Amino acid sequence: MTAPLDGIKVLDLSRFIAGPHCTKILGDMGADVLKVEKVGYGDDGRHFPPFQNGESLYGLSLNRNKRSMVLDFRHKDAPAMLIDLARNADVLVENFRPGTMEEMGCGWDVLQAVNPRLVMTRLSGFGQDGPYAMRPGFDGIAQAMSGLMSLAGDPDGPPMLAGTFYVDYMTGMYGANATVAALFARERTGKGQVIDVALLDSAVSVLTTALASQADQNVTLTRTGNRDRYSSPANVFATRNGDYVLIVSGTNPLFARVCTMIEMPELLEDPRFTTVPLRLQNAAEIEAVVQGWCMAHDTDVVIDALNKFGIPACKVATLKDVVENPQLHHRGQLVEINHPVAGKVTMAGVTMQMSDTPLTIRRPPPGLGEHTDEVLAEWLGLDADAVGALKAKRLV
Amino acid sequence: MTAPLDGIKVLDLSRFIAGPHCTKILGDMGADVLKVEKVGYGDDGRHFPPFQNGESLYGLSLNRNKRSMVLDFRHKDAPAMLIDLARNADVLVENFRPGTMEEMGCGWDVLQAVNPRLVMTRLSGFGQDGPYAMRPGFDGIAQAMSGLMSLAGDPDGPPMLAGTFYVDYMTGMYGANATVAALFARERTGKGQVIDVALLDSAVSVLTTALASQADQNVTLTRTGNRDRYSSPANVFATRNGDYVLIVSGTNPLFARVCTMIEMPELLEDPRFTTVPLRLQNAAEIEAVVQGWCMAHDTDVVIDALNKFGIPACKVATLKDVVENPQLHHRGQLVEINHPVAGKVTMAGVTMQMSDTPLTIRRPPPGLGEHTDEVLAEWLGLDADAVGALKAKRLV
Repeated sequence: MTAPLDGIKVLDLSRFIAGPHCTKILGDMGADVLKVEKVGYGDDGRHFPPFQNGESLYGLSLNRNKRSMVLDFRHKDAPAMLIDLARNADVLVENFRPGTMEEMGCGWDVLQAVNPRLVMTRLSGFGQDGPYAMRPGFDGIAQAMSGLMSLAGDPDGPPMLAGTFYVDYMTGMYGANATVAALFARERTGKGQVIDVALLDSAVSVLTTALASQADQNVTLTRTGNRDRYSSPANVFATRNGDYVLIVSGTNPLFARVCTMIEMPELLEDPRFTTVPLRLQNAAEIEAVVQGWCMAHDTDVVIDALNKFGIPACKVATLKDVVENPQLHHRGQLVEINHPVAGKVTMAGVTMQMSDTPLTIRRPPPGLGEHTDEVLAEWLGLDADAVGALKAKRLV
Repeated sequence: MTAPLDGIKVLDLSRFIAGPHCTKILGDMGADVLKVEKVGYGDDGRHFPPFQNGESLYGLSLNRNKRSMVLDFRHKDAPAMLIDLARNADVLVENFRPGTMEEMGCGWDVLQAVNPRLVMTRLSGFGQDGPYAMRPGFDGIAQAMSGLMSLAGDPDGPPMLAGTFYVDYMTGMYGANATVAALFARERTGKGQVIDVALLDSAVSVLTTALASQADQNVTLTRTGNRDRYSSPANVFATRNGDYVLIVSGTNPLFARVCTMIEMPELLEDPRFTTVPLRLQNAAEIEAVVQGWCMAHDTDVVIDALNKFGIPACKVATLKDVVENPQLHHRGQLVEINHPVAGKVTMAGVTMQMSDTPLTIRRPPPGLGEHTDEVLAEWLGLDADAVGALKAKRLV
């Protein structure tokens, strides 16, 4: 059994999250990912806290299954080196500001000419063209500008960022998916192509009904906190321990179970709560009752009762709960790697289980430039003297 | 130019969001997606509000580029029909509860035997195996159980769901990516395979440093509202109009620009604010100053000033802003389709721009069973009499 992208060579010029997540997926799929980093500094992600023995956990979380070489991108010989590497690659991934590759003399026209089979995957904040193309883009900007942020948070409070850089991650996923699709298409066409994926476009792709509600019905969706838009009680409730539980019990059958569970069958007859629309209209009242019951009990009691009555619910896990989750352990989702500098580092396992061509973790995240010599030998056939000459002129 | 998945046939048994988003991606990539829906009822997503001329915008947002046929999944002849369809498919996507396909006599062993080239993509809440496999899983449960929810919201308030079902969407994206990777692998191996992607695993894949902080450093990350974890001022601020702006200006150079912009150069000398760690320690104080300035000005003035000083920022868009965003219009990200029942429906465009094999929108979301006859003819070669016989016994 080999991995799905076994034999595919990826030249990875990307930094931060979206690009590195894209190439992490390709690496997990078996590609040989060569991370080319700024000499002496590396991916900006190497410099974000928290640190462990001086290594950034942020960078470590995104760069397994990659090798690292360094390059002075501003050296006069850098373009020739990048073109040589691209000639030997199947895929190039970059998330520079649009125009940067062209300024370096490494635009698509140039790369396509030297390697017609190359897939060039370009990730950016707003896409390679358009009135906002040159603006700096990052995850928070995309959450804000896409309207996603306006849909999160309490109605009385400010719009709220999510708990992770999910637009960055989604952009990396779309980039990886398009890259593999381009490799598949290449089997038929014999040709590579250029891919353009943007944070803002990726964010807008997950708005569900919000675009149509606005554009076609003139209804502006906004935030509802944790309260479900369409049924009640369905919200997050605090327990006596100071924990939170998510309970989704807005349908009539589930509401009946809740009334039994909290030993208040009279609520079923309460004219405020007899139908889904009525409960939604009086959501604050019915949720206050559920909140009262949860606050009177310990978390374990609450969760046990919810499970016993078959009500969809779970504790809102802290990270401490997450690392003890038996399902995640069973699924191999909490992987410990041994990093030569950072020591033991826990990270997410491979996310896609493929029966015939399984994804694997083969390498810890690389040290900056750890593989410069071996990659220049493998990819470009340079011997030690040739590599030494490149180092002498401070290109690598 | 053909699409990357031109000629690929996808048998789509999925419902709700994760599965339909997976097959929407495959459909946008050119696959012939056949959505098989419960006779008389269809995908559950057809029944979620809001509605337009009786059509669910929720369902419409997820099902373009698909054809629909109906099937009574509980009919005694349903397994044989599904097996016949699977024999003619390249990909089968399902997100039933684990074990359901097996109970219907359509497990992987059976399908693989009739079609060794089939890729079977299985999406679920917790994966096909493990102690939680049979629990009901949906987006909110995954946001809660993965720890992502504990990282969102105000420190003094409850953990907060995001503004969309992003774990559902990410699971669909991983499913689509693995599916295309399996098609690529099939070019070499000649064989299909089974893919297993879970909401919980997908959620855990985007925790960045939170897993390692907990497991390796015994530091439990928790929520910080919109305040950046690592620098200040970087937060969301209200303006005089009642709008919000996201401002990220925590580095020393950006902080200096902020002080100039708000005409308070003395802040640069203030011993509370001279370094990144000091500003972080006194984040509430410095952010109160920025908040005061924003609240004293109209949104346009605030945004113009931020742009003038080159400070990364944007208005937190309402959906009304989003549908007017010139970049989204330039990128073709706001697409109007004409639906025979719903009329004009606005939806997101194709997210991945591929130069040689562009993605396309070729069909509006289908009516329930709209293509039953034509698909049975095309896929299985059934004539009108044969289809009529299946209808007479209420199988389709």
